[in-house]
Amino acid sequence: MTRPRALLVVTGSELVRGERTDRNGPFLAREILERGFEPARITIVGDGEHELEAALREGLAGDLLVTSGGLGPTHDDRTVELLARVTGRELRVDEDLHGQIETVSRRVAKRLRRPYADFEPGVRKQASLPDGAASVGLAGTAPGLVLEHEGTVVVVLPGPPGELQRLWASAVESEPMRGLLGRARPPGRRVLRLFGVSESAVSRALEEAGGEPEGVEATICARDFEIHVDLVVDPGAEGEADALESALAESLERWLFARDERTIEEQVLVLCRARGLSLATAESCTGGLVAERLTRVPGSSDVFLGAIVAYADDVKAAQLGVPEALIREHGSVSAEVAAAMASGARERLGAEVAVGVTGIAGPGGGTPEKPVGLCYVAAETPDAARVVDFSYPSDREAVRSRAAAAALHLVRRLLTQT
Amino acid sequence: MTRPRALLVVTGSELVRGERTDRNGPFLAREILERGFEPARITIVGDGEHELEAALREGLAGDLLVTSGGLGPTHDDRTVELLARVTGRELRVDEDLHGQIETVSRRVAKRLRRPYADFEPGVRKQASLPDGAASVGLAGTAPGLVLEHEGTVVVVLPGPPGELQRLWASAVESEPMRGLLGRARPPGRRVLRLFGVSESAVSRALEEAGGEPEGVEATICARDFEIHVDLVVDPGAEGEADALESALAESLERWLFARDERTIEEQVLVLCRARGLSLATAESCTGGLVAERLTRVPGSSDVFLGAIVAYADDVKAAQLGVPEALIREHGSVSAEVAAAMASGARERLGAEVAVGVTGIAGPGGGTPEKPVGLCYVAAETPDAARVVDFSYPSDREAVRSRAAAAALHLVRRLLTQT
Repeated sequence: MTRPRALLVVTGSELVRGERTDRNGPFLAREILERGFEPARITIVGDGEHELEAALREGLAGDLLVTSGGLGPTHDDRTVELLARVTGRELRVDEDLHGQIETVSRRVAKRLRRPYADFEPGVRKQASLPDGAASVGLAGTAPGLVLEHEGTVVVVLPGPPGELQRLWASAVESEPMRGLLGRARPPGRRVLRLFGVSESAVSRALEEAGGEPEGVEATICARDFEIHVDLVVDPGAEGEADALESALAESLERWLFARDERTIEEQVLVLCRARGLSLATAESCTGGLVAERLTRVPGSSDVFLGAIVAYADDVKAAQLGVPEALIREHGSVSAEVAAAMASGARERLGAEVAVGVTGIAGPGGGTPEKPVGLCYVAAETPDAARVVDFSYPSDREAVRSRAAAAALHLVRRLLTQT
Repeated sequence: MTRPRALLVVTGSELVRGERTDRNGPFLAREILERGFEPARITIVGDGEHELEAALREGLAGDLLVTSGGLGPTHDDRTVELLARVTGRELRVDEDLHGQIETVSRRVAKRLRRPYADFEPGVRKQASLPDGAASVGLAGTAPGLVLEHEGTVVVVLPGPPGELQRLWASAVESEPMRGLLGRARPPGRRVLRLFGVSESAVSRALEEAGGEPEGVEATICARDFEIHVDLVVDPGAEGEADALESALAESLERWLFARDERTIEEQVLVLCRARGLSLATAESCTGGLVAERLTRVPGSSDVFLGAIVAYADDVKAAQLGVPEALIREHGSVSAEVAAAMASGARERLGAEVAVGVTGIAGPGGGTPEKPVGLCYVAAETPDAARVVDFSYPSDREAVRSRAAAAALHLVRRLLTQT
């Protein structure tokens, strides 16, 4: 079954220049996927006539084209004018819409103490619609529009994310969109989350399980040092998806840590909470990143007590009770110090579970024996303790992220004893 | 003056489906703009053959095409294969590159305790280049490539942002890119960084300064709770840019904290280092985010000693010496407790400068008197102390980020006494 194709065109000079990151494309893509369309492309262009016109023209090749931005009152807001051009339609002032926009503009004029006449050209521009287009509501003075053109439904939305989301909800209820949605069949979704295995090993496991059956699309994607497997399941292919999911879960069991979208930090908190265990961290090279990830989760305060970021060796000794002799003998980047940091955090912070991280994040500080990327992670619970090490020669940010991921996953493994 | 046009093609199913937000397009766009090109379009597509092929074909219309992603060892990593197709070139194994990738893969195989033979098909795939393409270095087992095709320079980069950035730096040094860069005339750039002022106030200041002169393009953009003003200056318009920059710097002086691109955490570290002051943090609602931001900066260890993340009140008392009576009387979210946290961090961690942060990140925990978004930030140096508060009712992530920004900016203001 082919899903209807949706193409997204996002316009804004600051977006195509990377000065701001687009949030509308990803929002619309998720909305569209959930409703059973295939988001095939997100095109980001500036407000130049040539680039925007080309993007709109290409967008008409899909079953659905959604645009974001370029609806303001000034001359470089060109989306509606160019949409009229590429669909070969006349632009005409919609009198009803003109009245609505005029009301809003008169209020703004009053607030800014400027004559309404200054606003009138902008109001006429924003009230001008291509033949056949209908307004789905106003964002400030900018109308969102829906239009059907030779089998393609076109939805025109404003750039500010809050307004776009509001008018999208209204566009979904419009006549042309309801027709299109009737043809789409929302897919099911299965997820497997793995840690400690390579992307290519997962890919091989997929092949050995017989690959993608008809109606099931598998994507394997490395994210934050985890491997995420997503199955997008067409209606009717649920049995095949079940079989594939089971086969993968079995062959990859050793590394499987979740079959839903919860993050590893959420899982660690849930595991601790279920056993009434409190949690703390002792961090050197991660500089507080493990604590920061844990406290991103709402409600983490019932489990997570705190952290000691011991960047300097003096702080490791004074605040975590790591013996100075241990640091002298093994170096602050060592299995022994990582373990002492975890023990120290349990004791000093009064936590039942703690994890300690020490490593060389770089770019400086590496030696032949202890190169940049070498990290030790130790976890301790009331019943067990474990230390792991890894070497991940990379940039500072990557080494730190990798160490934080290793710390969270080690705690999970220790709590589930896998 | 027309700048050479650059087109960016970003591939990844998770990106076109909005499951992850693309960072590579914006990074490359900024890089390209700085070097005198016009980033004309960012196209995000999945790994489907049809969509990616179309995007690459369109990309060849520019002077520069940069791609991100699709370089892995598996069958759905298709960028190189499709680039060969759209440029009409043969794919051939590059023996030298094969050797390099084999070396990396043998190490991985050993670490994973798997036979190298499992990796060989992936190695051959990743070592296969279109005729005329040259490697600019490896990201894991994936080579970045540069290729010249009928007047268009094509740069092929891997998807992981850190790797992409590293190989981009190397691609810029390649022969074809040097040729292209020779034709571009990099615009000048002026930046003003402000904190504590609104975007619309800055926009008004720009108008009052006479707006954008010919040859100078001004963008005002809110990022991480700062306002960034960028002036892009065509060669020849330097005088006009100087005048505008001075006018803005004068009228916005109160909020201006930088005229270069250094982050606030870098500035704080530089200020401390210049005076030989050590630095620590005491964090509640930010959960380690301030420490994490400071330790992102390479070399921060000569200034930053560590942090106490005191999420639980017991930790505030035991590890930071915040009197329990103070917490009982004023509540843990109060100016008094923030100040005591900063003092405690100075004393316990032996730091000359410390900042304490406490607040209600939400979504739970708010009361009518102390709603979600209320935060207190206190900084203390050997000579001075200051507490600020703000109320920023928003989602958890935004409240935490806002509090971390406030903490770093408060330290800067205290150290510069502005």
